[in-house]
Amino acid sequence: MTKTIDFYFDFISPFSYLAQVKLPDLARRTGCKIEYWPIDIPEAKIAAGNYGPSNREVASKIKVMMADLERWAVEYGVPLKFPADFACAYWNCAVLHARSQGHAEAFVTAAYHRIWGLGIDPRDLSELRGCAEEVGLDADALCEFVASPAGQGEYRKVRTQAYQRGVFGAPMMFVDEQIFWGNDRLDFLEAYLRLTQ
Amino acid sequence: MTKTIDFYFDFISPFSYLAQVKLPDLARRTGCKIEYWPIDIPEAKIAAGNYGPSNREVASKIKVMMADLERWAVEYGVPLKFPADFACAYWNCAVLHARSQGHAEAFVTAAYHRIWGLGIDPRDLSELRGCAEEVGLDADALCEFVASPAGQGEYRKVRTQAYQRGVFGAPMMFVDEQIFWGNDRLDFLEAYLRLTQ
Repeated sequence: MTKTIDFYFDFISPFSYLAQVKLPDLARRTGCKIEYWPIDIPEAKIAAGNYGPSNREVASKIKVMMADLERWAVEYGVPLKFPADFACAYWNCAVLHARSQGHAEAFVTAAYHRIWGLGIDPRDLSELRGCAEEVGLDADALCEFVASPAGQGEYRKVRTQAYQRGVFGAPMMFVDEQIFWGNDRLDFLEAYLRLTQ
Repeated sequence: MTKTIDFYFDFISPFSYLAQVKLPDLARRTGCKIEYWPIDIPEAKIAAGNYGPSNREVASKIKVMMADLERWAVEYGVPLKFPADFACAYWNCAVLHARSQGHAEAFVTAAYHRIWGLGIDPRDLSELRGCAEEVGLDADALCEFVASPAGQGEYRKVRTQAYQRGVFGAPMMFVDEQIFWGNDRLDFLEAYLRLTQ
């Protein structure tokens, strides 16, 4: 039976960008399907009872994490540039429209490339439109969805379900009863899938 | 020139236990020296401006971390058992005595094996004495040191210097101007050492 990897991510998260660089191939190698679920990391932390500061607010930590991100980008051979802003709610919501059109994987990959590969400003809606068109989506329909009560409601529902399931950050990958947290746990995820397929 | 890995750890930390399983061999392979610096993780977080809860206080997170620790223990082929208590201050301080006697590496390895491999109660001072004797240290001298103002003062100084250098958690490994955070970054540490030796 084809297993499903539930992939929880937020476009605010560079480690989710790194995970998405590798995840589609990992899924193909192991014969799995990926379901893409956008969450809101600051909200997920609060929902989990984690009232601590964001990584960006802890100077000594963000310094180490930036060097670490650079090492991963070199390791994966992908560009990495901090985006001009971190307002990604529309992009996250847009994934639900892309899902409904069967283009979730391509949209998530293309959006991460823009936001964390090229460092664009996610508030720039022409970038969101360009990303939609790039993967064969109707940009008008996508923008209408993310601004609509229906789209926002669906995004709220998906987030709520994620937090109720125990998602407290991103990237997180759920398969069967197993939970893997972090780009740096893709090896454990793949080992589990190979052992149980 | 022989490089030095400054290894910051706390016996409260299972990921530091895992790192210490691998670090001595890594240092030998790369011709490096390890300096052992005990810190206090809750204190390090506060010093760094991180007022968030401990991992153990976030139920959904500790559940995932425990499964993750199990995977690492299997990967490394070492036992893993949560200790009966987390009061490790004496054990941390004892490392400074072991350092002064040239037995830091052996003491840290043996202490981690007891605390996180066997899950002993670190408040049990007969365990601390047994650990000292196991690595050829004078248990009386070690216990005298950890209970003395001089020993506690040295431990405070080492912690202060660590936090001033940017240590915000454990395990952390500093080499040259590079900082590596986590048992899961030993590969990056080794790659850096091979590239620059």
